[in-house]
Parts: sequence; C-alpha cells; structure tokens
Amino acid sequence: MKFNKVLENIQTYEAGKPIELVVREFGIAPKDVVKLASNENPIGTNPAIAKVIRSNADIAHLYPDDSMFELKAALSQKFDVNGDNIIIGAGSDQVLEFISRALLNEESSVLMSAVTFAMYEIYAKQMGAKIIRTESYAHKYDEFMEAYRKYQPKIIYLCTPNNPTGDATSREDVLKIIESVDKDTLIVVDGAYMEYAAAKDERYAVTPTDLIGYDNVIYLGTFSKAHGLGGMRVGYGIAQEKLIKELYKMRPPFNITTLSLLVAIEACKDDSFVEASIALHQEQIKRYETFAKENGISYIESYTNFITYLFDENLDSTEISDALLKRGVIIRNLASYGMNGVRITIGTEVQNDVFFRHFAEVIS
Amino acid sequence: MKFNKVLENIQTYEAGKPIELVVREFGIAPKDVVKLASNENPIGTNPAIAKVIRSNADIAHLYPDDSMFELKAALSQKFDVNGDNIIIGAGSDQVLEFISRALLNEESSVLMSAVTFAMYEIYAKQMGAKIIRTESYAHKYDEFMEAYRKYQPKIIYLCTPNNPTGDATSREDVLKIIESVDKDTLIVVDGAYMEYAAAKDERYAVTPTDLIGYDNVIYLGTFSKAHGLGGMRVGYGIAQEKLIKELYKMRPPFNITTLSLLVAIEACKDDSFVEASIALHQEQIKRYETFAKENGISYIESYTNFITYLFDENLDSTEISDALLKRGVIIRNLASYGMNGVRITIGTEVQNDVFFRHFAEVIS
Repeated sequence: MKFNKVLENIQTYEAGKPIELVVREFGIAPKDVVKLASNENPIGTNPAIAKVIRSNADIAHLYPDDSMFELKAALSQKFDVNGDNIIIGAGSDQVLEFISRALLNEESSVLMSAVTFAMYEIYAKQMGAKIIRTESYAHKYDEFMEAYRKYQPKIIYLCTPNNPTGDATSREDVLKIIESVDKDTLIVVDGAYMEYAAAKDERYAVTPTDLIGYDNVIYLGTFSKAHGLGGMRVGYGIAQEKLIKELYKMRPPFNITTLSLLVAIEACKDDSFVEASIALHQEQIKRYETFAKENGISYIESYTNFITYLFDENLDSTEISDALLKRGVIIRNLASYGMNGVRITIGTEVQNDVFFRHFAEVIS
Repeated sequence: MKFNKVLENIQTYEAGKPIELVVREFGIAPKDVVKLASNENPIGTNPAIAKVIRSNADIAHLYPDDSMFELKAALSQKFDVNGDNIIIGAGSDQVLEFISRALLNEESSVLMSAVTFAMYEIYAKQMGAKIIRTESYAHKYDEFMEAYRKYQPKIIYLCTPNNPTGDATSREDVLKIIESVDKDTLIVVDGAYMEYAAAKDERYAVTPTDLIGYDNVIYLGTFSKAHGLGGMRVGYGIAQEKLIKELYKMRPPFNITTLSLLVAIEACKDDSFVEASIALHQEQIKRYETFAKENGISYIESYTNFITYLFDENLDSTEISDALLKRGVIIRNLASYGMNGVRITIGTEVQNDVFFRHFAEVIS
C-alpha cells in the first residue's frame, strides 16, 4: 500500500515517561515514583472536579453535548469573547492540529523558536510543511522578523511562556511581532502556561482580549496545567469567528469526553484552585533556583510550572535522567531538543525533597 | 488568510441532538426526554465501569500512559492478536481519521455504500479525495466490484453491520470482496456494532482473526455501543503491524483521557454487561418489528442496536422527527442521508413505551 509521502518524514512525539513504565521496568512501587516530567499539577485533582467526576460516573454511556454550549458560555464569560470565537480541542494540542490541517500544505513553511513545543513541528510535518526555526529559544523580535521576511511562513508560533524552556515573551513584544506581520500569516499565541507567567509579572500576561482584534491571530489555552486537568484532555482556541468556522471543518464530532466537558465547565467556575497551584509553585520554585545556584548549575528564569536546568560539559542530561529514572524520579531530558539540560516540573514540597536528594547524589 | 482548498467542500457532521438542546429549546425537564438518536446503550453505564471512574476521580490531573500498554494487552488477549497490531483512537472515528490522513490526497477516491457512516465521507473530503458510492445501501459484491474496477479507490469502507441502515454483510461476502481486491486498496471493516450482529447470526460475525492475514485490511471496533462507553471515546483498529506503524504517525499523544484508558481496560474484562445489553436489545427489538408490521411501516432487518423505519409518501421523516422532538423524543431523521426514514435506537422497555405512544399519535 502506498502511504502519503509526508509520512516518510514524521517522527512520533515522545511523551514523558509514565509512572506505569517505571513500575514495570524497574520494579519500583507506584507510591515511590516521583514524576516531575509532564508538568502535571502537583497538588493533584481539584476536589470540586473529583466530585463532578464521581457524580457523573454513571453517564459514561452518553455522548457529550457536541455543541458544547455550556462550556463555551463559561469560557465566553471568563475571557469576554463570544461563543463563536471559541473552538474546543482534546487539549490545545488538537486545536494546533486543526490549524495545521486547515492552513498547511507541501508548499508552506512554519516559523517557530529554536526550542519550543514539539507538536508544532510534528503537526506541520504531517502536512508536509517546511520547518523554520529562529536561532534562539527566546522569541526575539529581530530573529523572527528576519526569518519571516525571508520565508513568508504560513504560521508563526509564539509559545509564551515557552515550553520546554520556561522563559516568556512580554505582551509588548508579542504585539510588536503581530503588528509587523502581514494578514496572510497566522500567528498562534500558545498560552498553555499563561496563568503562571501572568501571576509572576503582569507585563507577561497576554489575554484573548489583547488579540481578538487581529483577524490573523489565535490564542490557545488549556485546562491541563494550572487547572490540573491534564488527564481530561481539554483545551481551547480563541479567535475571530471567521477563523474558528474554518477550523471547525477539521473538528471531529464528540472530540472531548462527556466527563471532560463537565469538568471543564466546573473548572471555569473555580479560580481558587488555580490560585493555590500558583502559590505552591511560587514558593517551591525558589528552592530550585537556590539549589541550582548552590551547585553551580545554570537555569532559565521560569514563567511556567517547571524549571529548565542547563548543564555544562561536566554533566550529561541523558546520563542524569536515566540515573534518576532508575531511582524512580522521572524528569524530562532535553537531549532530543538539542539541549544538554533537563526540564523539571515543580512538585510538592515532599516531591521536591525526593528530587533534590536523588539529584544531589546523581550529580556528585 | 488563505485556507487549504479542501475546506471549501467540507460539511460538518450533524450529531444526534443532545438532551440538553431539547431541554433548552422546548423547556422539557431532562428526566422526561427520551433520547433514541445516538445508539447509546439504553441500560446505561456498567456499574463496574462507574466504580472505576469513581475510584480514579482524583487522578484527572495525570496524563494517561501513552503507550496504552495495559489496554493493548487486554485487547490482544480478547482478539488473539499482538499489541503491535493495535492502534487506539478517541472512538473508532479517530482511527478512521488516521487512515484517511495516511492514505488519501486530492488524487484518490474512496468507495462506500450508498448510505453508510457519515464520517467516511467527511474524513475523505478533508483530504480532498473523491467519494464514490454504490447504488444500494447493502454491500453488494457486484456493485462494489464494478465501482472498484472503474475507480480503483484507495480505500473501500465495509460497514458491517451498517449504520444508519442496520443491515449487515455476511463474513462470506466480506471475505469475497477482500479476496477480489488488489493490495494497493485498503479495506476498512468497520465493526462498531459487530457484537449485535454476531449474537444474532454467527454467519455475520467478522472478527479481527478473520482479517489479520490480509495486509490491506483493517478491522475497527469500539467501546461506544455494546460496552456502553460512548461518552468515554475509545475505539481501536486492528491490522498488520506495518499498517499500524504508519497510522501511528498521525496519532496525537494522549489521544484518550486517563479515565477512558482505565474504563476500556475494565470493559475488556467484563463480558456480562455486553451480554445483558444484547439480551435486552433482542427482546425489545421485536416490539419495533411488530409495531411496524401492525402499522404498515417498512423496516430494514436490523443487526445493530437500532432499527430503521422506511416511510412511504404518506409520511415525512422530517415532520415526524420534528414532532417527536417537541414531545421530548429524540430519534435520528435520515433525510440528510437521502432517505425518507428514521433511525431509532432500541431503548429500555420504558423508553420504548414512551416512543410507541408518541409515535402512534404523530403518525395518525
């Protein structure tokens, strides 16, 4: 059978290693595994969310309301936009897929930072598009403009705060790039970790309201991180109605589960969980900064719920990640991103204690 | 912004109307709405499944094991295939999408019966492929062969039992088509409702084991129907490893939720719920057959959990569906499939009582 040519060039995404794998491969009890690899919310599941799940456990046989009327109403209110400005995805990931499929083909190129969310490249390659990257992982205006003028990309991805590096781009700089780009290029502002950046420094807060006036910009958000719903797979895109309508043509029916729909509606009502997540994070990340300084390790100033440690030639990120894995501590090795570094989700106090203990031993 | 040309030609799928819509539009209390439109399992959620959901309500923040190791092991055992022969989708729907994206382009065509599952066409159109249909809704060998020889389609869809008509194709006839088709055409055997057909007449049972020997055939199954997990969005494709590997390139990470993964594993362990679903169904469908005969309405002999009534010129399917909707009874109008008929999910005894009462009034 002859498959489409684009398949020859596609690598599949390497997900953070699951706890189940460590249990299977190294015989470590699940309770002793500390997973700081996938930027899951260390507090756990919001009790209000767990309650919604439990009370609706007996409607798993029913398809969700595919109009997502109530979730769109909740998001409309939260972000001061209309329901027609919103598309829901199985994670903001799926909205990235819709965008890629609606706009890209073998003649297009896409522009992104040197190190950024891996799915931009994978979805673009699925459409045969060419990948252009700037030199820095930071979203520098001059680098983006130079590449933009040279390649006229169909899509520019601005991941802010950036994953897996943790740095962010200020609202001013995001708007400066948007203002300098022609209307035939779509700018994707991926704010998956925006709650953390906005809480740290309001100059880094970018909101759908800042962007809805532009007809070539889409804002992406997710319930997976600050809302602690990674396992439920719900994200969203917010843009002008005309764009949303086109993306809808690539949306499969019932693209989130019945329970996912209900918990996302509940999550929109409850800001206190997000606030508690951020408070824990802000307190605990200081320990990672201090530890790095005390041990002569560089790190990238973080605007997210994780921190990226960068190693010099004396430390190897693959060796360190593998050694930690055998001890039941899962972090994300960044070697596949071309960096000698690791991304560590900021955990609970206890999880971080375990990490520091093992990490100190491994690097000594 | 210039979107891909294929978008001009895409219609979005019209999902069965949700209960929420009837509540909103007609002010009917949710408990008084009878939904027989989406082939959801009328028994409801398996209590063993509801228990799994409740006990895991507090891990909604954790991503699922993306290797789906345990679910694949359970399916391997159930169907006597290897884990490498399996790909999991958010419903078998998503596997259809992977297939379409891996194989189709603007030069290809796909072949399907005159009336069959709507997503075959939508996913094929998303890739710009041409849609070829046979004359009958039944999967007739001669009609398929004639179109196959004429158009050399890249994919042939055999939906058995067929949705939304309810008829089925025997194993003998499925294998006859497969044997007559060249290896460069993929044959998709969509067995979403197979449990019902197999229980009714074993000559209509088609299993992955029947098909795994062919390198151009894929079997699709789902947990949405007989297993009663429509709202959880889990389906699967079973084929030779080489094909599965290509489809994997189009699979997004974490494409089912954490709870969906756990309930699907549980569902593989529990045959009794499927047996009870089929028993209820077989008992209740007789009432639909009897009612039709008594009222001079034609119907298609059903091998699924629904029945299709066909109307003559004295009855109009749109008027009937609309009148029932206002009474809180949701069924599926088949006008958009070019048929003057309706598809009715076989409900519980009480649901069917309500249906017959309103339907008798509406058609009189």
